[in-house]
Amino acid sequence: MTKNTKVKAAILIIGNEILSGRTQDTNTSSIALWLNSIGVKVNEVRVIPDIENTIVDTVNLLRKVNDYVFTTGGIGPTHDDITAQSISKAFNLEYEIHKEAFKILESYYKLGEFNEGRQKMVWMPRNANLILNPTSGAPGFNIENVFCLPGVPSILKSMLGGLKNKIAGGDPILSYTISLKTVESEIAKSLTNVQDKNKDVEIGSYPFFQAGKLGVSIVIRSEEQGKIDNCVSQIMNFVNNKNIEIVNR
Amino acid sequence: MTKNTKVKAAILIIGNEILSGRTQDTNTSSIALWLNSIGVKVNEVRVIPDIENTIVDTVNLLRKVNDYVFTTGGIGPTHDDITAQSISKAFNLEYEIHKEAFKILESYYKLGEFNEGRQKMVWMPRNANLILNPTSGAPGFNIENVFCLPGVPSILKSMLGGLKNKIAGGDPILSYTISLKTVESEIAKSLTNVQDKNKDVEIGSYPFFQAGKLGVSIVIRSEEQGKIDNCVSQIMNFVNNKNIEIVNR
Repeated sequence: MTKNTKVKAAILIIGNEILSGRTQDTNTSSIALWLNSIGVKVNEVRVIPDIENTIVDTVNLLRKVNDYVFTTGGIGPTHDDITAQSISKAFNLEYEIHKEAFKILESYYKLGEFNEGRQKMVWMPRNANLILNPTSGAPGFNIENVFCLPGVPSILKSMLGGLKNKIAGGDPILSYTISLKTVESEIAKSLTNVQDKNKDVEIGSYPFFQAGKLGVSIVIRSEEQGKIDNCVSQIMNFVNNKNIEIVNR
Repeated sequence: MTKNTKVKAAILIIGNEILSGRTQDTNTSSIALWLNSIGVKVNEVRVIPDIENTIVDTVNLLRKVNDYVFTTGGIGPTHDDITAQSISKAFNLEYEIHKEAFKILESYYKLGEFNEGRQKMVWMPRNANLILNPTSGAPGFNIENVFCLPGVPSILKSMLGGLKNKIAGGDPILSYTISLKTVESEIAKSLTNVQDKNKDVEIGSYPFFQAGKLGVSIVIRSEEQGKIDNCVSQIMNFVNNKNIEIVNR
């Protein structure tokens, strides 16, 4: 029985450092894997620069066509951290000191260390809901369906757990992987047949070259275990018929 | 003397495996670093699923507002590889066997190995220009300003070099990094002053926690070395005044 398989999200990575190639984004994968586990499917990811108008327009577009939007980056203390002020503008809300966030950071830092730079991090859209940060104090926040998280991967990861109760997902998206010692062209036709017979299951084929091994991973994704099982048995049929070696399943 | 600092590109990552979090995209960084070196700035990255309409619409949108669009993924032999047919649709071109690509793969594979699955990889939009693949034979292609590359990172990287003559970039985007043993809040105000005095230079501030060290990297980016040098000396002024230890520069 599926509850709701249509819960969809967009991830918005804010930061020149990703666009320049200097920094490798890893937050997409962390957020997507976590969302899958609570039944939310990522529909789209965008990476945009630290430019206010671009952030405002993109957030306003994405929040209307997705159940949830997760932003990463731009909530630190420096001049290039403009996410909170941009979200305020997007929602037409005052950008102001958030009293609860102020208290949290005031007690987090030692006396005299809660300086002007750090105080920037408590400026948020009016009535923002805080997302607690067990790693480094400074909270993220959400306004309606837009959740703003930091860009530093370890801090972001530590904050996802606290979000769980704020997200109404559907059934978890299950997946099963079969890794074969073969090449894609060898199984392409048979795999197309399986996909054609199971149109509502997502079947992906991904070549790998790892640890000196060359092969193909077939990934089957659905909210329903039964549908995955059906595909797996159909795939195993042609795998056995073709005498293909199974690396892992 | 700048030639043209306005050459901009979008990267379009096509693939359910990135959206599900299963695979970590690394192609954005490879393409962006290479584009920077030939004077093209990445303006936007999008990750979208293997859905034809989504690919068609996104390509048609991005190619109109960017000088170049680079797609990755979806040009292999399996059912979920639908980039070439989608690009054909986006440009309203026939999707057909590309004779030159056919010859390349016919001679690449041993007799009898150029099977139906592999032959799918020579189906392209009519009159596509090939992008040669020194790693695994199957070429990418471009139509006008849209360049279609494979998803496998090592293959993609090996194909970038051959693209250089097809891209008309501006001056290379230069960057300089100063890594400091400090925290962002300590330098936020001084750095804002430098940014305010150098509005056409991109100054980013990125905390790092690496190898037991905690610090901040300041990245200064511009097409003009002189402008970078000015910022560096202004930054070094406050770094010295504050007695901040330099980790690297």
